[in-house]
Amino acid sequence: MSDSVHTIAGVRLGVAAAGISYADRDDLLVMELAEGAQCAAVFTRNAFCAAPVHLAKQHLRQGSPRLLLINSGNANAGTGEQGMDDAVNCCRGLADLAACEPHQVLPFSTGVIGETLPVERMQLAFPKALAALTEAGWESASRAIMTTDTRPKLASRSFQVDGVTVRVTGMAKGSGMIRPDMATMLAYLATDLAVSRELLQSCLDRVVKPSFNSITVDGDTSTNDACVLIATGASSLPPLSDADSPLYQQLADAVLGLCMELARAIVADGEGATKLVDVEVNGAASESEAREVAYTIAHSPLVKTALFASDPNWGRILAAVGRAGIEDLVIDTIEIWLGDVCIVRQGGRADDYTEAAGQAVMQQSEITIRVELGRGSATTKVVTCDLSYDYVKINAEYRS
Amino acid sequence: MSDSVHTIAGVRLGVAAAGISYADRDDLLVMELAEGAQCAAVFTRNAFCAAPVHLAKQHLRQGSPRLLLINSGNANAGTGEQGMDDAVNCCRGLADLAACEPHQVLPFSTGVIGETLPVERMQLAFPKALAALTEAGWESASRAIMTTDTRPKLASRSFQVDGVTVRVTGMAKGSGMIRPDMATMLAYLATDLAVSRELLQSCLDRVVKPSFNSITVDGDTSTNDACVLIATGASSLPPLSDADSPLYQQLADAVLGLCMELARAIVADGEGATKLVDVEVNGAASESEAREVAYTIAHSPLVKTALFASDPNWGRILAAVGRAGIEDLVIDTIEIWLGDVCIVRQGGRADDYTEAAGQAVMQQSEITIRVELGRGSATTKVVTCDLSYDYVKINAEYRS
Repeated sequence: MSDSVHTIAGVRLGVAAAGISYADRDDLLVMELAEGAQCAAVFTRNAFCAAPVHLAKQHLRQGSPRLLLINSGNANAGTGEQGMDDAVNCCRGLADLAACEPHQVLPFSTGVIGETLPVERMQLAFPKALAALTEAGWESASRAIMTTDTRPKLASRSFQVDGVTVRVTGMAKGSGMIRPDMATMLAYLATDLAVSRELLQSCLDRVVKPSFNSITVDGDTSTNDACVLIATGASSLPPLSDADSPLYQQLADAVLGLCMELARAIVADGEGATKLVDVEVNGAASESEAREVAYTIAHSPLVKTALFASDPNWGRILAAVGRAGIEDLVIDTIEIWLGDVCIVRQGGRADDYTEAAGQAVMQQSEITIRVELGRGSATTKVVTCDLSYDYVKINAEYRS
Repeated sequence: MSDSVHTIAGVRLGVAAAGISYADRDDLLVMELAEGAQCAAVFTRNAFCAAPVHLAKQHLRQGSPRLLLINSGNANAGTGEQGMDDAVNCCRGLADLAACEPHQVLPFSTGVIGETLPVERMQLAFPKALAALTEAGWESASRAIMTTDTRPKLASRSFQVDGVTVRVTGMAKGSGMIRPDMATMLAYLATDLAVSRELLQSCLDRVVKPSFNSITVDGDTSTNDACVLIATGASSLPPLSDADSPLYQQLADAVLGLCMELARAIVADGEGATKLVDVEVNGAASESEAREVAYTIAHSPLVKTALFASDPNWGRILAAVGRAGIEDLVIDTIEIWLGDVCIVRQGGRADDYTEAAGQAVMQQSEITIRVELGRGSATTKVVTCDLSYDYVKINAEYRS
């Protein structure tokens, strides 16, 4: 995480404890955006998506949002018509208090699936959250959106343009049910630059693939994933609408860096995770083939438990490559590396490999598994974690 | 399991303790087939398959086998040319002692991947296994092939034809790395009927799909899967070569029943398993779509940990259906049943569902999850188990 979190002119955040499902902690967040702020978003592609996801998409089509309403402890998913009514009522209640239109409120929920949202308790907490609005609210906001997370995920970037400092700050939550599909768990990023809606959306679409869409904890895709990028326009720099401008490139780089950092932080805080693992696949015939192999390794319970045990069990990695469904795969061309130690060459244990060398890599808390397929030039990288007793404990005891 | 295990005239089995990787237990099995016995087999489709799998396929093409040589404790996989030499030498050594051709020996290995086979210790044990050959050897054989299995899997069927009793007996091993693909973990079945090689193979091909190919413990496919069906021809009934004959249908039914029983026994003994779970998907637009949905549920770590916790967490099941990649999936038409309790109707919690009713089903040791997609008439069923602390423990401590 970054040492310091930059405030973003044009974004104020306020939290409250609504008693949604946790006792004695903030579980409700309101983000207020300055007039004229632009907002881009991507959402889960899970066909079973939550009421707030449907409503947020609808509201985004109706105009620029002024408020984001986020609650933890209840996903408002699998709640049918009641769930949609509840999301509508929350937006309406908050809009009334803030003197804006209901469609200017974007709703987000995360937590247990299939339980009704406690709308009344939430409405009672709205005035407190609104009264607490402050540009300095990012830290408490990043805590209010946590569920099984053990720590907040918050990061900032800044760069100078013509003597003006541009700031980008973002936060995310997520720990289990993590294999984002064209979106992520909840993540909110904001910059003070002025950016057109189209350009902001294309920036977000471009950065989510190598960041949030390349991580997996357990292969399960959430019903409530959403990632939002806000441009408040509070900066004195001219509005951005040209994708070829150097300023846009700088912004895109900053947003990408931030998303990569937050995505890695989600996996590092994966349920029960003790290790952060980069799975790199090179030499594939196509990118989809590379991703098949990378995800088959990253989802293999046998590979993940070996990682937990610090066991350089290359046979399990090779077996996962073998079952990834790649046509005409020739095992003899495959190399597998653990960090800078070659463990498999020509489909068998590398001649110069020693168990001690493999063990030394496996005992690190950050590990890279690299597979060289020798079939072409496509490449990919996904980030995952190990599978420990605590993953079972957390998910046998918690209702998501 | 069946109460009594039938011996099969024409099949003798002998075990020995070769000290391959376990102390003080049998780990080597020789099965001797009568002259004229026919043998059909299916093998793993994992592109990374073990040396004995390559060699067994090659030997099967060269003629009818007289001996099957099976060891546990070492998979002889990922062992390159050395592994192939070792498998060849084992077959040659056993053939010399038994006075047959090396290609009449089919080798099979199961256990740790990537370690060299202790050929000398195995050769020393061959005479003892040959001396122990007996038709009554099925029980000790089924124990000698176990790895992380906690109990042997052995079953029999018999039926009467024209006053003659026909017998079919089979055994299997398998507990982890279980998602057979067109084959299974090690399984051996035998009948005393005389059956042509072609018909025997078509019988096996037909029964593996609904049995061994419809089970999953952890989604990981082994490098060493093999399933063998033997027809010794010792019966006084006339040889079978007509797929339309009533006798063939009776045989096929008996083999299918046996494979289903052994497949369920593998899942019930899945690593760390506390529950046996049937996942039934009906109303799919195609069988492949039905299988996508069934396997997505069966592999979801969140669903599997909820099963372990006896938590009727239907949201996780619905979320798995939603991410199964089915095009144009409309959640509103979906029903989900836990046993005979409807938990989801029209995409949300069923009106008449009560937590107590769901809980009552979840506390059973055998559970059926049924999904009605409402899109067509295709249907499938897969069998899986839950994900417990012990799965992590076994795989963090054991080298497969």
